[in-house]
Amino acid sequence: MAVNLPPPDPALLYPVPGVELGIATAGIKKPGRKDLLVVRLAPGAVAAGVFTRNRFCAAPVVLARKHLKNPVRALVVNTGNANAGTGKDGLARALRVCASLAERLDCKPQQVLPFSTGVIMEPLPVERIVAGLPAAVAGLREDNWASAAQAIMTTDTVPKACSRKVKLSGGEAVVTGIAKGAGMIRPDMATMLGFVATDVKIAGGALKRIVKKVADQSFNCVTVDGDTSTNDSFLLIASGTGVEARSDNDRKMLEQTILEVSQRLAQAIIRDGEGATKFVTVRVERGRSAAECRKIGYAIAHSPLVKTAFFASDPNLGRILAAIGYAGIKDLKTEKIDLYLDDVLVVRKGGRNPSYLETAALAAMKKPEFAVRVILNRGQSAATLWTCDLSYDYVKINAEYRT
Amino acid sequence: MAVNLPPPDPALLYPVPGVELGIATAGIKKPGRKDLLVVRLAPGAVAAGVFTRNRFCAAPVVLARKHLKNPVRALVVNTGNANAGTGKDGLARALRVCASLAERLDCKPQQVLPFSTGVIMEPLPVERIVAGLPAAVAGLREDNWASAAQAIMTTDTVPKACSRKVKLSGGEAVVTGIAKGAGMIRPDMATMLGFVATDVKIAGGALKRIVKKVADQSFNCVTVDGDTSTNDSFLLIASGTGVEARSDNDRKMLEQTILEVSQRLAQAIIRDGEGATKFVTVRVERGRSAAECRKIGYAIAHSPLVKTAFFASDPNLGRILAAIGYAGIKDLKTEKIDLYLDDVLVVRKGGRNPSYLETAALAAMKKPEFAVRVILNRGQSAATLWTCDLSYDYVKINAEYRT
Repeated sequence: MAVNLPPPDPALLYPVPGVELGIATAGIKKPGRKDLLVVRLAPGAVAAGVFTRNRFCAAPVVLARKHLKNPVRALVVNTGNANAGTGKDGLARALRVCASLAERLDCKPQQVLPFSTGVIMEPLPVERIVAGLPAAVAGLREDNWASAAQAIMTTDTVPKACSRKVKLSGGEAVVTGIAKGAGMIRPDMATMLGFVATDVKIAGGALKRIVKKVADQSFNCVTVDGDTSTNDSFLLIASGTGVEARSDNDRKMLEQTILEVSQRLAQAIIRDGEGATKFVTVRVERGRSAAECRKIGYAIAHSPLVKTAFFASDPNLGRILAAIGYAGIKDLKTEKIDLYLDDVLVVRKGGRNPSYLETAALAAMKKPEFAVRVILNRGQSAATLWTCDLSYDYVKINAEYRT
Repeated sequence: MAVNLPPPDPALLYPVPGVELGIATAGIKKPGRKDLLVVRLAPGAVAAGVFTRNRFCAAPVVLARKHLKNPVRALVVNTGNANAGTGKDGLARALRVCASLAERLDCKPQQVLPFSTGVIMEPLPVERIVAGLPAAVAGLREDNWASAAQAIMTTDTVPKACSRKVKLSGGEAVVTGIAKGAGMIRPDMATMLGFVATDVKIAGGALKRIVKKVADQSFNCVTVDGDTSTNDSFLLIASGTGVEARSDNDRKMLEQTILEVSQRLAQAIIRDGEGATKFVTVRVERGRSAAECRKIGYAIAHSPLVKTAFFASDPNLGRILAAIGYAGIKDLKTEKIDLYLDDVLVVRKGGRNPSYLETAALAAMKKPEFAVRVILNRGQSAATLWTCDLSYDYVKINAEYRT
């Protein structure tokens, strides 16, 4: 069902020197599927992350955030259980997993970052995870990204991975990442995980700045209200085994490449959105601030009415106007607004464009990918979001998730 | 499909002296259905209303708001076309309808309030509406509430009407109302209309205070972000032909009765929600303010994940915790929160209640009506909202709305 999203070609996923990945079949929720991932980092690696702002944030998020203050040596990721809404017991369980892996990798539990995704409010099956660790550790390899992408899937139908090379002043570097998203219509309620690694040598502070900037232009463009699920995490790793990012230009080139990989991964989550049949870019232009453009973009991208119209390829575009109108921009002058569907001018100065033909909009909407473009004509800022349609299958998948 | 919502018994809808209703089949969108309603008010009647705050508010809303400043003599309501997103031309068309009715009723166009509901961004078919007015006016009768409830339906499957009598110090009075709601999951994107009338004699200022208070405890409890569709309107009429509300106690009794009628109507919109199979009360208690309780209630009531779980009778109640967590209450202490499903204590102090059995929650969720109760344990305020589940039929209805 995924929209224009072929599975990644393992041959095109460049290994990142200093980053080894191992997976296992731990039987966490269901037997017989890859559900555990261990990542070992070279000594001297630096990591930076952004995490959910949900008040019910999961135990692994609490620990990962804390452990990031130490030199990180490993990641442990499980699917099938989110370890969220589990209180103090959840923290203790997550820490036991960290401790078990730390012992095997000869580091401290505080140097291990835990990540979990799956059902909320059920106790983490520590024993099964710990029992799976030896196999994952035994299988640690640098060329294991494709398997890793599979091991972190939940309701994803396609593994998500992306890789790029970039030339810095000191030589070539590599950026490779994987992500998983239940591909929710509103990812703020889901668990979204993204891991991107590079071999570049770069200071922790610089990496921290990059991860925030990149998140805002990639994973946060498919997410509502900031990163608000219980488990959402995006982690950026620099193993430091490769060339150094020496100059501002190097750091800029690196950031661009990380952004490209991260945007691809974020878009892949939407392309694989639960029940998605359409991939829609929502661009809001000429607003007073990026924030107001995002607010309007989100109102459109979250409207069940707009999304069902996308699904039906029904150019019932008044629903988009209604969404713009209730986005909460108090002084918005609707009589200035233009609305395009791809290149079709639907609304001009707040009303139906006299020369607009519904057949033209229909043709655009029948494609698996199209863009909604709103021109506010009141400033110089813009924002781009990505979303999908709302189909029968969304309901089916979520009504039957646990059965 | 509507949940516990039998059609109103015409014999139980008390006529309101001084309020006559006439309907017609004007062929506005489809031929052969009642789609036009005219209401004539006795001289001296007072009216007060609350309207959408959507920036793209419809032409009839602009006019109704303006005309409310004059002594109102009539209402004209059409379905099949919302006359929203139609710019200046939309205003001119709505005014032509008012003028035509005013001529027939011997009043000024500025004494007529127009209301429209239906598809957004299509020109109002003035000629068809004007051609339907003679039949509607010819049929004006006080005992016509049941037909009026039918004439304002769009995707509603059941007409919505409610009537009560109340004893004031001067004698008995009557309160009768009708409403229509596309019964959206999020009514802020729909057109919701509510008209409630009484024969009580009361000052315009007092009626204005009542309409705001009542709206906040009825129609605004099934609505997000205030009243934010393009056409939402709730109008309260006092014909003044009956007993006078003389004392504070009279006004309080009247307000209570109007609230009861309005809550019934608002709940009816949810019971007839598009595709609804469950009617769910969301109550948030012991918050610091009613506003924060409403915010959390809305987060739960709008979550597609929570709503699909309702549909599936799946006690995947971690989804409710996630919604509470991202509701945007920054200093919320999750470890204080209790969560009930009807009388089943699911979450205690932010984590799974040790003695909670999923079978108990399942039994509650299998019923067509149940309550979600969140206890924040940080204050004395509370809020109650009503919502429905998200089913296949919601998608079906909205994907096929115009076809």
